[in-house]
Amino acid sequence: MTELTVIVLAAGEGTRMKSAHPKVLHKVGGRPIVGHVLQAASDAGATHLAVVTGPGHDAVRRAMQEIAPATHFFEQAERRGTAHAASMARPAFEVAEGYVAIVYGDHPLLSGADFRRVTERLDAGLDAAILGFEPRDPTGYGRFITDGDRLLAIREHKDASEDEQRIGLCNACILAFRAEVFRELIDKVGTDNAQGEYYLTDLVELANAAGRKVGYAVAPEENVMGVNDRSQLARAEATFQQLRREDFMKAGVTLHDPASVYFSYDTEIAADVEIEPHVVFGPGVRIESGAVIHAFSHIEGAEIASGASVGPFARLRPGTNLANGAKAGNFVEIKNAKVGEGAKINHLSYIGDADIGAHSNIGAGTITCNYDGYNKARTVVGENAFIGSNSALVAPVEIGDGAYVASGSVITEPVASDALGIGRARQINKPGYGKALNERFKAIKNKK
Amino acid sequence: MTELTVIVLAAGEGTRMKSAHPKVLHKVGGRPIVGHVLQAASDAGATHLAVVTGPGHDAVRRAMQEIAPATHFFEQAERRGTAHAASMARPAFEVAEGYVAIVYGDHPLLSGADFRRVTERLDAGLDAAILGFEPRDPTGYGRFITDGDRLLAIREHKDASEDEQRIGLCNACILAFRAEVFRELIDKVGTDNAQGEYYLTDLVELANAAGRKVGYAVAPEENVMGVNDRSQLARAEATFQQLRREDFMKAGVTLHDPASVYFSYDTEIAADVEIEPHVVFGPGVRIESGAVIHAFSHIEGAEIASGASVGPFARLRPGTNLANGAKAGNFVEIKNAKVGEGAKINHLSYIGDADIGAHSNIGAGTITCNYDGYNKARTVVGENAFIGSNSALVAPVEIGDGAYVASGSVITEPVASDALGIGRARQINKPGYGKALNERFKAIKNKK
Amino acid sequence: MTELTVIVLAAGEGTRMKSAHPKVLHKVGGRPIVGHVLQAASDAGATHLAVVTGPGHDAVRRAMQEIAPATHFFEQAERRGTAHAASMARPAFEVAEGYVAIVYGDHPLLSGADFRRVTERLDAGLDAAILGFEPRDPTGYGRFITDGDRLLAIREHKDASEDEQRIGLCNACILAFRAEVFRELIDKVGTDNAQGEYYLTDLVELANAAGRKVGYAVAPEENVMGVNDRSQLARAEATFQQLRREDFMKAGVTLHDPASVYFSYDTEIAADVEIEPHVVFGPGVRIESGAVIHAFSHIEGAEIASGASVGPFARLRPGTNLANGAKAGNFVEIKNAKVGEGAKINHLSYIGDADIGAHSNIGAGTITCNYDGYNKARTVVGENAFIGSNSALVAPVEIGDGAYVASGSVITEPVASDALGIGRARQINKPGYGKALNERFKAIKNKK
Repeated sequence: MTELTVIVLAAGEGTRMKSAHPKVLHKVGGRPIVGHVLQAASDAGATHLAVVTGPGHDAVRRAMQEIAPATHFFEQAERRGTAHAASMARPAFEVAEGYVAIVYGDHPLLSGADFRRVTERLDAGLDAAILGFEPRDPTGYGRFITDGDRLLAIREHKDASEDEQRIGLCNACILAFRAEVFRELIDKVGTDNAQGEYYLTDLVELANAAGRKVGYAVAPEENVMGVNDRSQLARAEATFQQLRREDFMKAGVTLHDPASVYFSYDTEIAADVEIEPHVVFGPGVRIESGAVIHAFSHIEGAEIASGASVGPFARLRPGTNLANGAKAGNFVEIKNAKVGEGAKINHLSYIGDADIGAHSNIGAGTITCNYDGYNKARTVVGENAFIGSNSALVAPVEIGDGAYVASGSVITEPVASDALGIGRARQINKPGYGKALNERFKAIKNKK
Repeated sequence: MTELTVIVLAAGEGTRMKSAHPKVLHKVGGRPIVGHVLQAASDAGATHLAVVTGPGHDAVRRAMQEIAPATHFFEQAERRGTAHAASMARPAFEVAEGYVAIVYGDHPLLSGADFRRVTERLDAGLDAAILGFEPRDPTGYGRFITDGDRLLAIREHKDASEDEQRIGLCNACILAFRAEVFRELIDKVGTDNAQGEYYLTDLVELANAAGRKVGYAVAPEENVMGVNDRSQLARAEATFQQLRREDFMKAGVTLHDPASVYFSYDTEIAADVEIEPHVVFGPGVRIESGAVIHAFSHIEGAEIASGASVGPFARLRPGTNLANGAKAGNFVEIKNAKVGEGAKINHLSYIGDADIGAHSNIGAGTITCNYDGYNKARTVVGENAFIGSNSALVAPVEIGDGAYVASGSVITEPVASDALGIGRARQINKPGYGKALNERFKAIKNKK
Repeated sequence: MTELTVIVLAAGEGTRMKSAHPKVLHKVGGRPIVGHVLQAASDAGATHLAVVTGPGHDAVRRAMQEIAPATHFFEQAERRGTAHAASMARPAFEVAEGYVAIVYGDHPLLSGADFRRVTERLDAGLDAAILGFEPRDPTGYGRFITDGDRLLAIREHKDASEDEQRIGLCNACILAFRAEVFRELIDKVGTDNAQGEYYLTDLVELANAAGRKVGYAVAPEENVMGVNDRSQLARAEATFQQLRREDFMKAGVTLHDPASVYFSYDTEIAADVEIEPHVVFGPGVRIESGAVIHAFSHIEGAEIASGASVGPFARLRPGTNLANGAKAGNFVEIKNAKVGEGAKINHLSYIGDADIGAHSNIGAGTITCNYDGYNKARTVVGENAFIGSNSALVAPVEIGDGAYVASGSVITEPVASDALGIGRARQINKPGYGKALNERFKAIKNKK
């Protein structure tokens, strides 16, 4: 396959975001905008990835290195236009073979297919191919001046004549070239325009002038939506979610109210999973067939096996693993814990850094005390154990198979298999003293 | 009133649902789709109900017997078309008097009125009457070939001429006949069509050929929506919810954001109840005037009296009964419990299998320990009692009127009226030892 | 500036609300409808405010005195029309200088700008100016009979000719007059109409007949929406929320799904605050830059400083103050409490009437026992303290800086700085007794 070097322009400040953070780090579906662009490039078979960041945007570099470690980063110190930004990646395109594609980094809904729309034109013999779209409202976009299937120029909105402003086909966000053509032309871009900036779109006319064949491809508008402010960010998120919801329903997932369920870019859900309204999925969730996610659940970094039941009001944090038929119920938080087959944690519990054996029952209000202020420690509960309600399990601690912890106990020592562990005070009753207390407290109140 | 035998065709696999469960058992408004159809038939005065299920669909039978115990069930072992399916119910229609109506079982938004639209035509002297509708997009539906108010034939989409494809009036989901006419014609249906199946819609032409008078009625599109995949299921749910929300608002219920509140088919709510956003009602809820349901509440099988307050973040499970002015607050789960007038359970509590007397106060973090791993037991709290925070009440146990339980107690023995019950250890302080612990834990951390 | 007396007509019963409460006390964005009208009048520079209430509507008076203490109240004992209602406020307009504006009290989306639309016409020399709008569907509204920029009459829908019914410009909800003109005309209004009522809109023809110059202004439809039933109330709420959401996004607030977040009329949120789906803000919330509000949070009366993190599943009640970087996590309720810089309350806790020092850690399941049934008392935790999980802090009580409370303790006595406080029973294990218990409980179950 032809090599493909993708240069992502991600240097913009995004002033209209009114944010202290670089625009491309704002998230859609739980992943930074520019991460979606890199993913789309990878999906399209990009062999080399380069990102041009703004000055001081180390955060972009850090975030992207997690997603695509082989990416090269270049900084654009001064903002002198998109062609200037692209030229910062010279070390990447100088040695490039095959194709070079420049893409704007603020387009979170791009997919691999959108890259392929233009690279297929190069495959077909063109020297350059630009991605276009037909916006509902073309105001502000660069118009495609075409002749049949050839693209002659991209005219910026303010430079367009009245006739040209009636053109519906506009510049989207990917410009692809044969590598040698790109190298030949990029330094010829000038600044003869109102802003005095180097515009990447000038490459189209330059290529035509040099006798190169320039074409275009057309993407659906929703794919090539750019994000410039928080309303557009919300709209991109909404579109992303809408697509995911439809995908899941097609695959056999029941969503009672699709619009109230939010997925992450990497959520995996099998057929015949049922999801009630008001559920939020953070990154890293995988759910097997037949599980039920009840309303008001917030789930991230969790594996949920077949027939498991979650919520309502469950909070599953990274490292949670529910085995077949396990249950995490109301007001239950679990993190970094394996919950065995058929085990139940039904009410008001915090289970952190723990292993809960199969068919064990964790009573209401059970807390694993996994943190001493500095270190985390592990709680291990065997199979078929019973942890009485309102118990505190002070880690590190181990409760054996078939063991029984009495309600209200503080357990600091191991409880052997089949043993009873009890750590609570004996009850004392004081007849009439309840009445006396009530009277005393009432008197205090009346004095106030 | 004329007898009415309704035969529900519920044998479809629903392949596009991609589900291991029969399509008609998927739920809308908390009730299986086919349950809505049976309810609509009952509302229309059906005197005999029959359901034709698919092979191995015992689950349909079990689910429906709960809703309509007198229903007769028939199995269609082979899938040979809708007329073949209907003929499986021969024992039901063989002896039928009055009318026989065949209805598709995957239409959850049907109402009694839709049945009456066609039976009224029979009352008016017709021999058969078919329910039609005018879909926004008629593609795929059988078209009504009419002559004035007579229905001559139903033409399947693929058999329709170009002219016929322009017909907007289409076959919906109910075909009603005089019983003797149905019996006379059902076995005359043949398989002379592309699929080689027995089509129920052929009855229209057969009836006309036999000199019978066939008419039609028209239902609104939203009533006769069929469910074939999860997207349509979500759309049916949305329509169902929209109708319920409007009904409740008309009846004087305040919904801050109607779109974020989900009702069950049987939810009952009086005027002047206020419902904040993000509330889910499961089956079996009844709420009296003046109650307030705060955001993030999940309620099923509960009776909530006048002036009671629920949530935010309350989970009321079946058997919950809140008396006048009672309060179930934040992160509180209640099941199978009566909460007396003005009693308060305000924070982080699990109250199961309990009676809480009027004006008692259940402190934050109180847990009723109602389960020993095998058996459930009951907690009884009298009137004007005070349960201190973070207490565990180990059932079976009784706390008398005016009694006082000290905070942090584990109560295993009864506390008499006006008595104080206390079951907690005495506090010990070790000066300087907190600092020592911190240093030790810090050292452990640093060693790691 | 010219004096402006605003008379709010708030006497309607609002029968279609089906409510025991006066219509104008139903809330939009957490504030009574009539409160929004008073706020709009104040924003427009009203110097005197008068509200005409229905008989027995003391609740309106009480609610409004909180919002605008200088407001004068008048009761309309009999319902004899809008002009009759306005005349009840005679003491207010009898002595008025400048302008008198009459406004309908059931228009929650009015803003100061809408008042200024009409008062600016008076400033420009007119004697009266009436606010109009162009509804999508004018059915039922009084039509503006105009001649150029003059308003000749307002024709009630039922009195309008066919030609007049085609007029799109209709009466909205504010009628403004020079004070002396209003006084001169108000008593001339008669009851010569179908209802036999005194109509305020008759003032337009009367003014013209008296040679006065009457004009009009036009407001956007969404501003002048009246509320007559619960559906309209829900629609007004939706519009209010939509406007707030757009405002916040413009100001640099991230809303993952704007439609699932609900603001109050007075919510203040800085740029770069991130808000996940499903969040409800009650009145009195202020959030500083960089804070994150996770999903399923319910927040009222709280100050949240820079970098603080809330939820998911947090409930912050009035008097909560989170300092920089503080954290209120899952299933945590806080009220009337200061949480110091970097302090953490991460899981299943109730913190009421408390001060938590900087960098202290409150373990999972911690409960402040702040209520004895009659009185509230305060819990004070110092800086860098560690409260072990599942502890109960029985107020009034003080935990010193750097102190350490062992998990599962009930703390009733002060713990000095750097000390350890422990209040729990020692654990006892009984080998084999867990198995015995299981067998006993199983036997009981089997006997049942």
